[in-house]
Amino acid sequence: MNITLEQALKITEAAKQKAEALDTKMNIAIVDSGANLISFIRMDQAWLGSTDIAIKKAKTARYFDMNTGAIGELSQPGKPLYNIEHSNNGLITFPGGVPIKNDTGEIIGAIGVSGSTVENDHAVAEAGALTL
Amino acid sequence: MNITLEQALKITEAAKQKAEALDTKMNIAIVDSGANLISFIRMDQAWLGSTDIAIKKAKTARYFDMNTGAIGELSQPGKPLYNIEHSNNGLITFPGGVPIKNDTGEIIGAIGVSGSTVENDHAVAEAGALTL
Amino acid sequence: MNITLEQALKITEAAKQKAEALDTKMNIAIVDSGANLISFIRMDQAWLGSTDIAIKKAKTARYFDMNTGAIGELSQPGKPLYNIEHSNNGLITFPGGVPIKNDTGEIIGAIGVSGSTVENDHAVAEAGALTL
Amino acid sequence: MNITLEQALKITEAAKQKAEALDTKMNIAIVDSGANLISFIRMDQAWLGSTDIAIKKAKTARYFDMNTGAIGELSQPGKPLYNIEHSNNGLITFPGGVPIKNDTGEIIGAIGVSGSTVENDHAVAEAGALTL
Repeated sequence: MNITLEQALKITEAAKQKAEALDTKMNIAIVDSGANLISFIRMDQAWLGSTDIAIKKAKTARYFDMNTGAIGELSQPGKPLYNIEHSNNGLITFPGGVPIKNDTGEIIGAIGVSGSTVENDHAVAEAGALTL
Repeated sequence: MNITLEQALKITEAAKQKAEALDTKMNIAIVDSGANLISFIRMDQAWLGSTDIAIKKAKTARYFDMNTGAIGELSQPGKPLYNIEHSNNGLITFPGGVPIKNDTGEIIGAIGVSGSTVENDHAVAEAGALTL
Repeated sequence: MNITLEQALKITEAAKQKAEALDTKMNIAIVDSGANLISFIRMDQAWLGSTDIAIKKAKTARYFDMNTGAIGELSQPGKPLYNIEHSNNGLITFPGGVPIKNDTGEIIGAIGVSGSTVENDHAVAEAGALTL
Repeated sequence: MNITLEQALKITEAAKQKAEALDTKMNIAIVDSGANLISFIRMDQAWLGSTDIAIKKAKTARYFDMNTGAIGELSQPGKPLYNIEHSNNGLITFPGGVPIKNDTGEIIGAIGVSGSTVENDHAVAEAGALTL
């Protein structure tokens, strides 16, 4: 099973509405089950540097089928996955990347959000992912 | 002047409708006046390898403020810009990238399309760019 | 609004004078509002490795519209943005990158300076940015 | 012997005046005897994609101590240096890169110019290089 563009755009719209509710300007990326980009938007005045971060968060969440923040806890100095960020042409392991599941719980893609605090980034990503 | 997300999504929708009218599956990327990605979609069943090509076509069209196909004519063996594709982390110089102008003729971004023949790619990009 | 070359050269000259006043040899880079390089100088005997750092500092400051040092505080081990440096083909997050604002407070570019202590790098960047 | 920043800025100014005389908008890069960037300017409204090309032309001219166009003749299909552009993280081998010599004929750096036809690019680069 793989996410469709229609689903990706529905998730993106829900995430964008959450971003606006939080008064933030976000970059929102969606990847499919193959970790390949399927959709992306950058809201006006959002940080330019967050485009790559949003895409990398989405990829990272699908690469390991978990929230990016969970990987970040394991990649700290002295932890088991120290500096895993060097792999895959660059991972982003702080919050804002969340797997996307269909109604049977199967992972069909992931969303990555960047543009505000990591708490806001995660809240917007989750609002999107939970729309399906 | 710089393209807005609202304009980018309007252009993307027009391009997508053209793609459907041509019975093709396209990747459609839009960059702003600074050649930074602002929006992207990949239609279901479109080629995965065309994601990067669509983004590079959009960047290439804005980098040089002309259709990508015009650059490709000059980058052939024996022509003035042979192997220009090695610059800027990789250009794509065949048709499918078109500058986006506002109603006063100022370039505010560019669209890149990839997924079918270069004739179709260009037709879809132009349908998008002419929507503004 | 976007920085002009004339403004960039005026800022560079002010930064260079500050560098000389501090008896340092600096690399000084300016990017525009799209984070694209607009001007660069390397003072005689300045570190060769600081060329790329100055350019990355300028890009980083514009990517996130803040001083690079502010990002560096958040990218330490255990902090919210740990290893953000892996994004955007490499960020530099220690001091020396400063956004450039016009007289209405709008960000129109950024300056990046490298070649001495981070305190001196920041002082020179700020001297440049405040010239406008 | 190595080019100084003062010499690089003098060459850049001469090249810029030539660019203005030709009614063109150029990117102008200078590298030192180590092929490391020493100065760069992008004139207002010059092509964004020509920044990297100007820098690569300057490096290419110093890497091989000859005009870039001379290398381009040898890198065509069937010629001795076919696809040499793949080396050194990307060469640019069409005209616009010219070695810089001091008054004793020693090569002390190189200039790369991009933003117009290759004839204009070369004319501007040569105007700069011959100023010393």
